[in-house]
Amino acid sequence: MPDGNWKTAITDIAPGKIRVRGYSITDIMEKLSYAETVYLILKGELPTKAEAALMNAVLVASIDHGASPPSVLGTRTVISGGNSLNAAIAGGVLVIGDTHGGAIEQSAKILQEWATKGDDTAQIAFDIVDWLKENKKRMPGFGHRLHNVDPRTGTLFEIAKRHGYRGKHIELCQALETALAEKLGRKLPINVDGAVAAVISDMGFDWRLGKGFFIISRVPGLLAHAYEEMTRERPMRKLGPLPFEYDGPGEREV
Amino acid sequence: MPDGNWKTAITDIAPGKIRVRGYSITDIMEKLSYAETVYLILKGELPTKAEAALMNAVLVASIDHGASPPSVLGTRTVISGGNSLNAAIAGGVLVIGDTHGGAIEQSAKILQEWATKGDDTAQIAFDIVDWLKENKKRMPGFGHRLHNVDPRTGTLFEIAKRHGYRGKHIELCQALETALAEKLGRKLPINVDGAVAAVISDMGFDWRLGKGFFIISRVPGLLAHAYEEMTRERPMRKLGPLPFEYDGPGEREV
Amino acid sequence: MPDGNWKTAITDIAPGKIRVRGYSITDIMEKLSYAETVYLILKGELPTKAEAALMNAVLVASIDHGASPPSVLGTRTVISGGNSLNAAIAGGVLVIGDTHGGAIEQSAKILQEWATKGDDTAQIAFDIVDWLKENKKRMPGFGHRLHNVDPRTGTLFEIAKRHGYRGKHIELCQALETALAEKLGRKLPINVDGAVAAVISDMGFDWRLGKGFFIISRVPGLLAHAYEEMTRERPMRKLGPLPFEYDGPGEREV
Amino acid sequence: MPDGNWKTAITDIAPGKIRVRGYSITDIMEKLSYAETVYLILKGELPTKAEAALMNAVLVASIDHGASPPSVLGTRTVISGGNSLNAAIAGGVLVIGDTHGGAIEQSAKILQEWATKGDDTAQIAFDIVDWLKENKKRMPGFGHRLHNVDPRTGTLFEIAKRHGYRGKHIELCQALETALAEKLGRKLPINVDGAVAAVISDMGFDWRLGKGFFIISRVPGLLAHAYEEMTRERPMRKLGPLPFEYDGPGEREV
Repeated sequence: MPDGNWKTAITDIAPGKIRVRGYSITDIMEKLSYAETVYLILKGELPTKAEAALMNAVLVASIDHGASPPSVLGTRTVISGGNSLNAAIAGGVLVIGDTHGGAIEQSAKILQEWATKGDDTAQIAFDIVDWLKENKKRMPGFGHRLHNVDPRTGTLFEIAKRHGYRGKHIELCQALETALAEKLGRKLPINVDGAVAAVISDMGFDWRLGKGFFIISRVPGLLAHAYEEMTRERPMRKLGPLPFEYDGPGEREV
Repeated sequence: MPDGNWKTAITDIAPGKIRVRGYSITDIMEKLSYAETVYLILKGELPTKAEAALMNAVLVASIDHGASPPSVLGTRTVISGGNSLNAAIAGGVLVIGDTHGGAIEQSAKILQEWATKGDDTAQIAFDIVDWLKENKKRMPGFGHRLHNVDPRTGTLFEIAKRHGYRGKHIELCQALETALAEKLGRKLPINVDGAVAAVISDMGFDWRLGKGFFIISRVPGLLAHAYEEMTRERPMRKLGPLPFEYDGPGEREV
Repeated sequence: MPDGNWKTAITDIAPGKIRVRGYSITDIMEKLSYAETVYLILKGELPTKAEAALMNAVLVASIDHGASPPSVLGTRTVISGGNSLNAAIAGGVLVIGDTHGGAIEQSAKILQEWATKGDDTAQIAFDIVDWLKENKKRMPGFGHRLHNVDPRTGTLFEIAKRHGYRGKHIELCQALETALAEKLGRKLPINVDGAVAAVISDMGFDWRLGKGFFIISRVPGLLAHAYEEMTRERPMRKLGPLPFEYDGPGEREV
Repeated sequence: MPDGNWKTAITDIAPGKIRVRGYSITDIMEKLSYAETVYLILKGELPTKAEAALMNAVLVASIDHGASPPSVLGTRTVISGGNSLNAAIAGGVLVIGDTHGGAIEQSAKILQEWATKGDDTAQIAFDIVDWLKENKKRMPGFGHRLHNVDPRTGTLFEIAKRHGYRGKHIELCQALETALAEKLGRKLPINVDGAVAAVISDMGFDWRLGKGFFIISRVPGLLAHAYEEMTRERPMRKLGPLPFEYDGPGEREV
């Protein structure tokens, strides 16, 4: 019934030997930052200095956003029900879907698909806006519920600029901001998800990994919330939902 | 590296053949209720008529409890984040821990451990209350946040009585209600979890399966909530947490 | 920040009161089978006698399929890592996706979308096969890895027939079997997922609930495997993967 | 029903403002490494230079261990069933329990509880070995299935030594290695989990966070496996279990 041996190109293991993408784990422990190691394990190669700085900033940027994101609610609810730390992290990660943390993936997909359509970035940006309007879609990674201007976006692009790192996707992302403002008549600034999408796309990561960067970044934040819930709150406190009322069928007999 | 073949005593599978605990699945589909099949797959043997009625009532009893249980919050939060039905059910099941749905297991453990200590059930019940007081523990499966008298308890015991089904654990559970009232000076009625614990213990189920009965029973309820959230509500609505404030360190510089 | 009260039409809760879709839980415990209650909570109304028999058979049919399904591997792996029962069930449910247990949903979607296209069922079936061929798709719910003829399909349709229960979707499903055989030149019998898809579609359930019926049905099976792993096997035994080899980059220096 | 406002000391959020433990997220993006940020969010304060190097090495050390760990099996099984990236990460994290990845927590608990018992570390180490023998327990964090000497342990302690970082827990951990060898008559070297347990204990982290460090570290590894499964393998391939046989009841009639 088995399909025979299968293969993996991630880590080579033997007694006394652990090599990630060919590099010895003890060398990595001494010489690379964790952010560089994340880049290595996902990409297969070492980052440049610019990519190392950007990957670090990407992972820091989304580490936490206070108590309101639904993934925090997922994690705290699992702890509150009397469960283990790993179940709580899993419960939070399960919430990170298309409408929470999904914008990196969706935005990177659009950037990567349209960036191949030519060299006139400004024109491509206008074409994307037309396509969005025709399909009645909003551009993921732009605008934010809470922040008028997402402070993390500027810093991420600033770090990129300082290192002279600006590929086609960052360029297209910024052109989109202009095109959206012009065509929609109102500012819709790039948020952290959009900026991360542009940066990882220029680094050559597949858009399908988009949610992955958000998850890596956010897990320590979820852990901090799990621990705070465990140590500061009593079990089964009222975490939600908000007051609700029943509006189904009235009383009846079987 | 493999440990060689391993064994399972649950279901026998071969081309054209599916036999659960020895019985053909097509015979079961025709002749057994789903509750009887649950009993069979977990116990290995067919239930009596009394056990079939009780297992059915046990599974019905906990199918849903409105929108307030934390597992519902878990399930709805996962849907609200833009995820699939199975992730949402998993997210709800993850919440079912020691403080939510754990009372069946905890109560059954106590009933099963003490029921072996002799034939004087009333005395054993008093000994349990003493042991609880010494260890500053509350008896799981008694009392309820919302219901003064849990309506499901009476029905479950009524069905047992009608079938002449009353083993040592149901007896001990009811003696405990008396002993608690006498020693604590206030009524602490058996809730549905305590009643289920007594019934499954008399059926001969290991207390370590306790949470399992609650999970089986509740999954359709979680599914109903997942579907209602998916079809009646907009994504990422405010499900919780309640208003919160930050009380950590003030602004400081790196 | 809250969005105000929200509403649920599933279960009405108040002190001493639990009413599912308007019916008292204690009445349901006495008068309905668990399968009927599952129908009620998902549909909002009581099933007919035919629907009750079919819902029961649907839930029994997929309760377990031996040790090979990937969801069993998910559940056993979680137990083997030293975790709780609810985490193990969640781990198994997480595996139930588009390629494992997803055929009910996919098949019901096709049946429900094409059943509205007219009254000539045989012609619609041929049109579906053409559409599948044009789009290089396989028809979900037909054929089986292990069973030449899935024994559960015949029993399910037999129960439907005995009750005179045969709507447009069962009819279309069976016409598809004929059309596939004729156009592909080989038999591709309806499997249990395809039969369940037809039956729940005739009952009026939304295809988006498809995976839900599979999950409800399978949870007791996963629980049986979790308990067997917990009680018969040692922790961290070799459950998988099969032998593998590393084929990534050779040794190199940071 | 709500319990009133609740509090969090992790991150302060307001329009245009994100401050983790009091520090601005944009400052952190510019000035701190991700490993330092993980330290900050969990501890509430900035790490020293030694602690930053150690936290980095701790996170790098456990990032992946090839295809054999059960959490990798969990993650790959979820992808193989046709599910999303976040469900796959959650499926892997669910496997990280008491027998897989639990040694950090268990080892740190022992180190933290015994380190308070006096200043004679060598004596305490012998007392721990006696206590283990009396209770027929193995010392978690020592010995390894595959590695005779875990290469990561030496590097971690080497980094600590270079920074002059050696508190009571590292000392006790190393004394334990000596005591175990002497009393058991065979070498049982500290593995990476034991070394991490000592290091995080000296940093002042609660042992209950132990699994958390392993989870943070391993999530990128799980993501790499999820992506490899998604892009290199076909859905529903045979990932496990190994060949099995049915040993339950023979054929019988309902």
